[in-house]
Amino acid sequence: MLTLILSDYLLQHFDKQSKVPCNRQLYQLLRHAILEHVLPVDAKLPSSRDLATELQISRNTVLYAYEQLLAEGYVAGRSGSGTFVTDTVPDAVALKSKLVTAVPKDEPIAPMLSQRGQQLVKYAGAAPQQWGAFVPGVPDVTQFPHRTWSRLQNKVWQNPLPTTLTYAHGGGHLPLRVALAEHLKMARSVDCVPEQVVITTGIHQSIDLCMRLLGDPGDLAWVEDPCYWGARNLLRASGLNIRPVRVDAEGLCPDAEDFKAVPRFIFVSPSHQYPLGMVMSLARRRLLLEYAKQHGCWIIEDDYDSEFRYVGRPLASLQGLDHANRVLYMGTFSKTLFPGLRLGYLVLPLALVKPFVVGMEELHRAGNVPVQATLAEFMAQGFFTSHIRHMRTLYAARLSLLQEAIAQRFDPKVVKPTGSDAGLHLALKLPAHCDDVAIVRAAAQAGVAVRPLSSYYHDASQAERGLVLGYACVQEPHIAPAFDVLAGVIERYL
Amino acid sequence: MLTLILSDYLLQHFDKQSKVPCNRQLYQLLRHAILEHVLPVDAKLPSSRDLATELQISRNTVLYAYEQLLAEGYVAGRSGSGTFVTDTVPDAVALKSKLVTAVPKDEPIAPMLSQRGQQLVKYAGAAPQQWGAFVPGVPDVTQFPHRTWSRLQNKVWQNPLPTTLTYAHGGGHLPLRVALAEHLKMARSVDCVPEQVVITTGIHQSIDLCMRLLGDPGDLAWVEDPCYWGARNLLRASGLNIRPVRVDAEGLCPDAEDFKAVPRFIFVSPSHQYPLGMVMSLARRRLLLEYAKQHGCWIIEDDYDSEFRYVGRPLASLQGLDHANRVLYMGTFSKTLFPGLRLGYLVLPLALVKPFVVGMEELHRAGNVPVQATLAEFMAQGFFTSHIRHMRTLYAARLSLLQEAIAQRFDPKVVKPTGSDAGLHLALKLPAHCDDVAIVRAAAQAGVAVRPLSSYYHDASQAERGLVLGYACVQEPHIAPAFDVLAGVIERYL
Repeated sequence: MLTLILSDYLLQHFDKQSKVPCNRQLYQLLRHAILEHVLPVDAKLPSSRDLATELQISRNTVLYAYEQLLAEGYVAGRSGSGTFVTDTVPDAVALKSKLVTAVPKDEPIAPMLSQRGQQLVKYAGAAPQQWGAFVPGVPDVTQFPHRTWSRLQNKVWQNPLPTTLTYAHGGGHLPLRVALAEHLKMARSVDCVPEQVVITTGIHQSIDLCMRLLGDPGDLAWVEDPCYWGARNLLRASGLNIRPVRVDAEGLCPDAEDFKAVPRFIFVSPSHQYPLGMVMSLARRRLLLEYAKQHGCWIIEDDYDSEFRYVGRPLASLQGLDHANRVLYMGTFSKTLFPGLRLGYLVLPLALVKPFVVGMEELHRAGNVPVQATLAEFMAQGFFTSHIRHMRTLYAARLSLLQEAIAQRFDPKVVKPTGSDAGLHLALKLPAHCDDVAIVRAAAQAGVAVRPLSSYYHDASQAERGLVLGYACVQEPHIAPAFDVLAGVIERYL
Repeated sequence: MLTLILSDYLLQHFDKQSKVPCNRQLYQLLRHAILEHVLPVDAKLPSSRDLATELQISRNTVLYAYEQLLAEGYVAGRSGSGTFVTDTVPDAVALKSKLVTAVPKDEPIAPMLSQRGQQLVKYAGAAPQQWGAFVPGVPDVTQFPHRTWSRLQNKVWQNPLPTTLTYAHGGGHLPLRVALAEHLKMARSVDCVPEQVVITTGIHQSIDLCMRLLGDPGDLAWVEDPCYWGARNLLRASGLNIRPVRVDAEGLCPDAEDFKAVPRFIFVSPSHQYPLGMVMSLARRRLLLEYAKQHGCWIIEDDYDSEFRYVGRPLASLQGLDHANRVLYMGTFSKTLFPGLRLGYLVLPLALVKPFVVGMEELHRAGNVPVQATLAEFMAQGFFTSHIRHMRTLYAARLSLLQEAIAQRFDPKVVKPTGSDAGLHLALKLPAHCDDVAIVRAAAQAGVAVRPLSSYYHDASQAERGLVLGYACVQEPHIAPAFDVLAGVIERYL
């Protein structure tokens, strides 16, 4: 009787024309039969000879499948009497519940996630669209000298040493750290030696490392309000307590209430406040440095796009003013080269380098040397500097076109562009009654991507209204037409 | 008087032969003079004309430097009367403390780190040496077909689309997910569609994502004892409570004491227990699956090296037996290709994919498409499968050589090799009185790298003694001689 059921089952499902080899197929079918109780516990398998004849396959094929089942414990041999299905099901209850098959697929997700997981998802800010008018923060990657890159990359791959391909030291590829230290000293007045540079996969990993190595759950962090949504979400995900601190024309502006509790971290973007674009004044910088020194706070300086400065020369970094080792400086190649590269860097006080390198190795393990080596060569041969120079001119021209388009359509007292001295974006402030979220939604339907300024604030209901526009990845002829479309939408809400 | 000091200072430091442009140099010197109080608050700067004459440079150069100082707020113009150093120092106390320059560099590091940071560093396990006899877990990267890789990579870089270079979707490059799903179904009996595959940078990132999205601080995790040191440290770094659960010949073996508290995570390596190498029995697998289903635990299956199986065929994954969506399956290309690639993968229940993708984007942002696209092509064209086949033969031969060398020197009742059916390493168990840490230290001095078995245990003082030896990255002629050196060391401790 049993043999009949099994034969039916096998003849029905066994397919000699299939791409799956016969022995593999047979093994899978038998395994399935055991798991689904077509073959119950203690059932005897047919002899390999009989089964081979029945399925018209070689006996070796059957033996192979049986051996695999034996090796995995689905069946066991009893000496002299054949091969039997083993009893591997924990108990009767389990057996019963086993027969109630798959869990419903529409189970709600949120209760499955941890509390911090739910928060992480709830405050998510990354947008699906990463190209076109006017996605903020994306450089024009079509201008990237990919032929040069490819040529340098080929050199790295010509005869790679084992050290290029195995796990690496967590600080990053040394020639890249040397090239970066040189660049940061010259271009950003960062006060550093190569040993202080730690290569990461970008600003997010840099922040994460700082939070894990220097912060504990419940620690207080000041963040600019508004600020980069990603930083805020990362701090939250690390268990930090966030205190939003307002910014004025001079940058971060803590008031008496803020000063009541000393933060462990002060998170700022002094060279080009994100997203409003002002520069932190020298007075404010020195105030922050002094406060951090006296109270042992860590200042995290996010210097994400100040290589592109169109008015005056690049402003010196906050780190370069720090004599008390309180600044953790971070930057990225996402704006200067391309975001998909996933390379950024931290410049740390020397005493912190070793624990950060260890932390990197433990949390992520290190590697990716071929990409880092290609970039090091790209910098050493001067391509990085010349690419920045080229892009600065290009972006300046695009910025002008956008500014012109704005000026032609709007009274600057009503729709006020701000923060356009540097970077890849500007903010367009709108009157308080404008629903910037609704504008963004309507603009998206009209084919233009922008971000609502209010979404960068800690509390959107208390936020300034406006739009954040990226112009860097928009080719010149598209700027005015795309802005016209956006302007049409804005006007409906003014 | 003041002008005299300033002149002295400038004439002493200004260097027209320097590579730094004159205007930049002058700006830096003046800034330094202000910060170091060579130029005190309210000091008047010399007129640009006078300074230009004195330094024998053009007046424009001086104006440029002055403008920069003005822009950064170091000086301010008073109409009609000249340019003065501004008072940007917070207060008198600060001024005083400012003069006490840099913080001592030998400040102890540990108290600067957070509690979790200190823990992360304290339990660090990553070794600096990643190549040679007998580093565990490292494949022979010299065998990697780098010319093929380079050729495929060039195709990706020939005309990259913006989507290849900008931020990407957090799930990974779709063709890679498709190729992986296919491979995992065939080779590992993983039950999945491409949508369930999420590309990560390796096992560490995969674990981190699971802990953050599904775990909260204080949640309980069962881990095998012994286990992979990296997993244990990551769980700890995420605030999980670790319960080490002993393993026997059938794999994870929870006892009555363990069952008293339901864990949120059960972390196992069922196909090749790390580091001891046994295979989890079917009975134990079903017990775990049933338990996880009834209690809502997540089973994390670390399937790190079972593509390389030398005895019988590859064993089916635990995930393939799961009908209740409780298994999170993870694997890596670090063993099959090369560790520096930094690519791994998670196979998740469908309902978890979206939050994991969002979590990935928020925590790390996504990108790295050029590398993922190269790998997708490498797999689609069959190079991945053939590389595994080639390496399996090679590693099997190296394993035999090592086993022979061991058999020639030691009585298997005293020095007992174990776990050599699969993977890139084996464990050599030693009598309980042997100090395996001392052996490892002595072996390192003799030029052979191994890891002490006791270091994989939660409590080294209760641990089995032994050595973990990687043979995959050791070329054939070196195996016996290197083992002879190691054997000489071992004998001194027997």
